[in-house]
Amino acid sequence: MLVAQGLSAEDARITADVLLMADRRGIGSHGVARLKRYVDGIKNGVIRTHPAVKTVRETPVSLVIDGDGGMGQPLTYRAMQRCLEKARTNFMCFATIRNSNHYGIAGYYVLMALTEGMIGVSATNTTPLVVPTFGRNVTIGTNPIAVGFPGKNEKPFLLDMATSTVPRGKLEVFARKEKPIPDCWACDQAGQPSTNAAALLDDMINRRGGGLLPLGGGDELTGGHKGYGLSALVDILCGVLSGGRVGPDVARNNNAPAGVAHFIGVINPAAFMGLDAIGESLDEYIRLLKKADKAAGQERIYVAGEKEYIFEEKYREYVPLQKKVFEILNNIGNEIGLSITEYKKGKD
Amino acid sequence: MLVAQGLSAEDARITADVLLMADRRGIGSHGVARLKRYVDGIKNGVIRTHPAVKTVRETPVSLVIDGDGGMGQPLTYRAMQRCLEKARTNFMCFATIRNSNHYGIAGYYVLMALTEGMIGVSATNTTPLVVPTFGRNVTIGTNPIAVGFPGKNEKPFLLDMATSTVPRGKLEVFARKEKPIPDCWACDQAGQPSTNAAALLDDMINRRGGGLLPLGGGDELTGGHKGYGLSALVDILCGVLSGGRVGPDVARNNNAPAGVAHFIGVINPAAFMGLDAIGESLDEYIRLLKKADKAAGQERIYVAGEKEYIFEEKYREYVPLQKKVFEILNNIGNEIGLSITEYKKGKD
Repeated sequence: MLVAQGLSAEDARITADVLLMADRRGIGSHGVARLKRYVDGIKNGVIRTHPAVKTVRETPVSLVIDGDGGMGQPLTYRAMQRCLEKARTNFMCFATIRNSNHYGIAGYYVLMALTEGMIGVSATNTTPLVVPTFGRNVTIGTNPIAVGFPGKNEKPFLLDMATSTVPRGKLEVFARKEKPIPDCWACDQAGQPSTNAAALLDDMINRRGGGLLPLGGGDELTGGHKGYGLSALVDILCGVLSGGRVGPDVARNNNAPAGVAHFIGVINPAAFMGLDAIGESLDEYIRLLKKADKAAGQERIYVAGEKEYIFEEKYREYVPLQKKVFEILNNIGNEIGLSITEYKKGKD
Repeated sequence: MLVAQGLSAEDARITADVLLMADRRGIGSHGVARLKRYVDGIKNGVIRTHPAVKTVRETPVSLVIDGDGGMGQPLTYRAMQRCLEKARTNFMCFATIRNSNHYGIAGYYVLMALTEGMIGVSATNTTPLVVPTFGRNVTIGTNPIAVGFPGKNEKPFLLDMATSTVPRGKLEVFARKEKPIPDCWACDQAGQPSTNAAALLDDMINRRGGGLLPLGGGDELTGGHKGYGLSALVDILCGVLSGGRVGPDVARNNNAPAGVAHFIGVINPAAFMGLDAIGESLDEYIRLLKKADKAAGQERIYVAGEKEYIFEEKYREYVPLQKKVFEILNNIGNEIGLSITEYKKGKD
């Protein structure tokens, strides 16, 4: 589908791999369901299939890249490859990428580092959906950050989290079920936390105000200023360090370049105690967390990334797709003469 | 007082500066009130006044330091000076420090970087006071992280936050006032969120279980697993990368070496768009956040670090001390023949 829109086979392969990895890890919101938006983005000229990518600055341990409006996945994949190469000899490398687009799950690029026995970091700014502490309009993104460390026998530690309490999709789930939401998820047009998901979504969609709340909710008393600070931190790492866009200037208009910015990096464990020692120590730490006494009614304590690895084990052979997603894919396919096999209802 | 306990004049000067900076920035919990614990730590042999500090590993962009049980402040101050020197020529440097002690406010070492026009980061693990998501006993620390970026005309962005929703001191304030606390602050011995601060503190102090909750509270629904993940991230950066202690093994016993570990670092803005461009872009970003529409009843949106800078302006001439803190200092002083002038009740 992406090749049919003019993307090179290699760029399409990279993008598809990032999307499939999201589905395999149970993060369907960032899986192949996103293809529709990418295809539309290319059609609208928001995404350039053959951008003139430039390295704006380069040192032995850093890169600033201008993506010229290209697809986020191939841009970031290639920047990560360069970071990995530099970190092998120079112990670490961080890159900022400006003028990019949606890059999929932040964790994908960290997984690239983990596969090579390296420590990885990845963050991106996003469409503004989040209200700063004491504000009432969307000003900052859900700005996710991902960090991963390689274990020895245990799976890696892989924290991959939006800096808002929840993504907007969660409000949609609760609105459909007509269930009240926790009051740390979103605020209304007056900036007041609310539990009415349907009304909040209506305000947001019609741009009357209100939006998602940062991790910690809408009040300093519950730590909302910390989530707000983390979101701003990601904006600075991505948009300020790269000379790119930040806050409300990111991806606000569906018919203009999105100007999303990313921050990625690799640390070679040899810069510290080395891969073996760090892996062993991380294994011990993970076991220690997992064996801690459980709360009443709980059977298991998880470590960051563990739930996604459970999905990956489970979805080794195939990944179930919602019928709605199948239909989206089929519609794109039909437009370009690609036929997709029949939807089968599985046990998942 | 520290010199009287055997610390060198230079180490005492550094430690005093870190403590005073906390008081000046309105973080009294980490100010001179801490002197009592440091003096006791030296007396009990938990803190060594003349540690045999070793550089375990060194690369052009990294350091691993073994603090041999020395004071956290001089250890980290000197490591930060070395990071700054390396970052000037090699564009960045990160250091992990093991076998250390309480190092004061995380932000102090970031301020050292900001003063030199550099980007700074600082984190430390702490006494376990926090319960992991789905747990019921303290297993991880309040593990603060601080990150700062230099502005041009605006004050720096300086995020300095514990990864728990609140510190234990907040529960004490509410217990004294017999006010219920928000249910995202702490959980009881069964691992259930509770609003009864006095009962929670009683459980914690008598080690019956329960403890502080990570940022986001006690449930995945409210994002508690994110705060838990951030706390673990800090533990890994500090204790795992350095080959030091983590989680429940940190500072559990008042009569044995604490084994606190830190992670600090410096990024030279020249690795990215340079100090001038980054400063200007950060200024714009800060103004953009501050001018966003305010929630009903709110007059001001703050940026990370802003409140502390307001305190610093206000406390340029003198820093008010609570009478209780004055008495603590006077008691230490009396023991070693140091007299302190009379306590004056001020307008603060």
